[in-house]
Amino acid sequence: MLQPPPAEPGMREEEVDTPALILDLDAFEANLDTMAGFLAPTGAKLRAHAKTHKSPIVALQQIRRGAVGQCVQKVAEAEALAWGGVPDILVSNEVVSPRKLARLAALARISKVALCVDNAEAIALAEQAAEAAGIRLPVLVEIDVGAGRCGVAPGPEAVALAERIAGSRHLTFGGLQAYHGRAQHIRTPEGRAEAIHAAIEDTRRTVEQLRQRGLDCGIVGGAGTGTFRLEAASGVFTEIQAGSYAFMDVDYAANQEAPPFRHALFILTQVMSTPKPDLAVVDAGHKAAPTDSGFPQPWQRTGLRYAGASDEHGNLRIEGGTPPKLGEKLRLVPGHCDPTIDRYDWFVGVRDGRVECLWPIAARGAMA
Amino acid sequence: MLQPPPAEPGMREEEVDTPALILDLDAFEANLDTMAGFLAPTGAKLRAHAKTHKSPIVALQQIRRGAVGQCVQKVAEAEALAWGGVPDILVSNEVVSPRKLARLAALARISKVALCVDNAEAIALAEQAAEAAGIRLPVLVEIDVGAGRCGVAPGPEAVALAERIAGSRHLTFGGLQAYHGRAQHIRTPEGRAEAIHAAIEDTRRTVEQLRQRGLDCGIVGGAGTGTFRLEAASGVFTEIQAGSYAFMDVDYAANQEAPPFRHALFILTQVMSTPKPDLAVVDAGHKAAPTDSGFPQPWQRTGLRYAGASDEHGNLRIEGGTPPKLGEKLRLVPGHCDPTIDRYDWFVGVRDGRVECLWPIAARGAMA
Repeated sequence: MLQPPPAEPGMREEEVDTPALILDLDAFEANLDTMAGFLAPTGAKLRAHAKTHKSPIVALQQIRRGAVGQCVQKVAEAEALAWGGVPDILVSNEVVSPRKLARLAALARISKVALCVDNAEAIALAEQAAEAAGIRLPVLVEIDVGAGRCGVAPGPEAVALAERIAGSRHLTFGGLQAYHGRAQHIRTPEGRAEAIHAAIEDTRRTVEQLRQRGLDCGIVGGAGTGTFRLEAASGVFTEIQAGSYAFMDVDYAANQEAPPFRHALFILTQVMSTPKPDLAVVDAGHKAAPTDSGFPQPWQRTGLRYAGASDEHGNLRIEGGTPPKLGEKLRLVPGHCDPTIDRYDWFVGVRDGRVECLWPIAARGAMA
Repeated sequence: MLQPPPAEPGMREEEVDTPALILDLDAFEANLDTMAGFLAPTGAKLRAHAKTHKSPIVALQQIRRGAVGQCVQKVAEAEALAWGGVPDILVSNEVVSPRKLARLAALARISKVALCVDNAEAIALAEQAAEAAGIRLPVLVEIDVGAGRCGVAPGPEAVALAERIAGSRHLTFGGLQAYHGRAQHIRTPEGRAEAIHAAIEDTRRTVEQLRQRGLDCGIVGGAGTGTFRLEAASGVFTEIQAGSYAFMDVDYAANQEAPPFRHALFILTQVMSTPKPDLAVVDAGHKAAPTDSGFPQPWQRTGLRYAGASDEHGNLRIEGGTPPKLGEKLRLVPGHCDPTIDRYDWFVGVRDGRVECLWPIAARGAMA
């Protein structure tokens, strides 16, 4: 069931019902501008990852600032974007279900869509779907540049798949997908640089081998919020797939030389119990604030630490400062923005302490 | 946005779109029967926790087998149950928002509702909401019997709050809430017994002190799937608030002398990549299978271990046995059933390999 919006435009932030997902519009817009300004002088374009924001409204703001389109991980996310007017969508992931491929091919009538493969069998499945839909589907080859999940080895294996795609009457070879997920949260800049330089070289070598076989990469895509400055400067990557940059979270802020973005996303939560002098309990537990990348943390409140989560309770330890009062509402910075956004049906856009807008999170729960 | 159902009645399980939440109806019904059979000879009644199942359909099946009603943690969950015909609902949690209290009081016209307090200020807020709605609201006092989150100390503090409630013209004293959450997953039976015996003694003492002041506890509620046999045998607890027992998960199965229930809940997932001989990647990452209590695990597949989750990818390590094929669908046992169910819009009920029913998860995302 869609949950009702927790606020109405014009309300003060402290009137918003909790838990709620607050978007600081000034910080959010500044983040979009910062990324656009950074990428403009490089050769690379933004194809922001919608698995983070899950919203055509956000996607269109990124596109207005120069993004070429959007990435998604799931066909259901692609549907939510295409239905919301996003014109160019890459499924930066493997899809092998014939029903899902048929849904994706159907979207090609309203938006430009593409997907990734790492296996000849998957190419045959994509080909069947494209043929049945009467379209020609762009397909990228995913190479494993260190993430250790999907992707073929860079080099000849990738070239063989690209040739198989290029030889199909129903597919076109779209380029390479080369995302190094694990590198995004390596804490030291040296560690990130080492990982990404290896990824860049693997990618460069594969691009060259493809070119020698007459295959040009329309897209060479990868990078995230932790490393995009490296890929953008590489001369190899043409598209940057960062998503979290628009919002930031505790995990990215913990990187040394953290990404140059402001915290724009918050969980508004209410103190529902003050049982002990050193403990306040809030109404955001791990259902409201997923803990896969660590706990959320109170925003601009010294002496307060989110120290434990159960399903619907968050335990704030009071370690100095003014203890929060019963009923008080406060902001938490999410531990990890992607799964946090996916817990909510609405962004509550706030500026100068007032609710300015409500945006539905159209791809909330779009896992299929 | 509500996600479309991933299946239709009559389909074979392997045709269900992924990721999907599969309910093995035979195992589920057996679990409901086992709990009803266990509690029948004790003095205790089941008030199952709907924060786990989030569905009036499940609630009504529990009630048909003797449960007195349901627990919830959130007013929005209470709404989903009351609107679905559940006649008796306890918010086993604190509520201090006037808007939420007004919503809860409004429900009292269609279902019996009650809530918990651990603070005099919260009593005053509940009283105002009850008065405004023209109802008399039952209120329980939550005592902290070891969970270390909400609740006043057992004994005189609890008695003082109960007297304040009983003295109100708009409230009635409903009893005690005494849930020891932390004890549920203590791995050894001795450790659980030690924790719960202390909780029982704290509760018994408080019940007696209340009785000496002329205050009878209509409800003495607590217990979960890990410890309910202890509370039910105590002669002190009148209501058992287990929720997970209907489904089970990896975390409860890891208890020594695990609860006597069958695995009834599964995440159906598809292999979308087979990039290396020892690795298969499935389409259920931590968005589809929350990892707050550990990873999900493959069901009845030896030599296969879920070893890593990113947002939308699960890495299965192949450690012997038959490796899964590209496109193959397999069941995962969730690490923690409560947040897992809350990720989906539909239960897909399966019996003898066929989809028998689809049940909406009406309180999915009901955090407010």
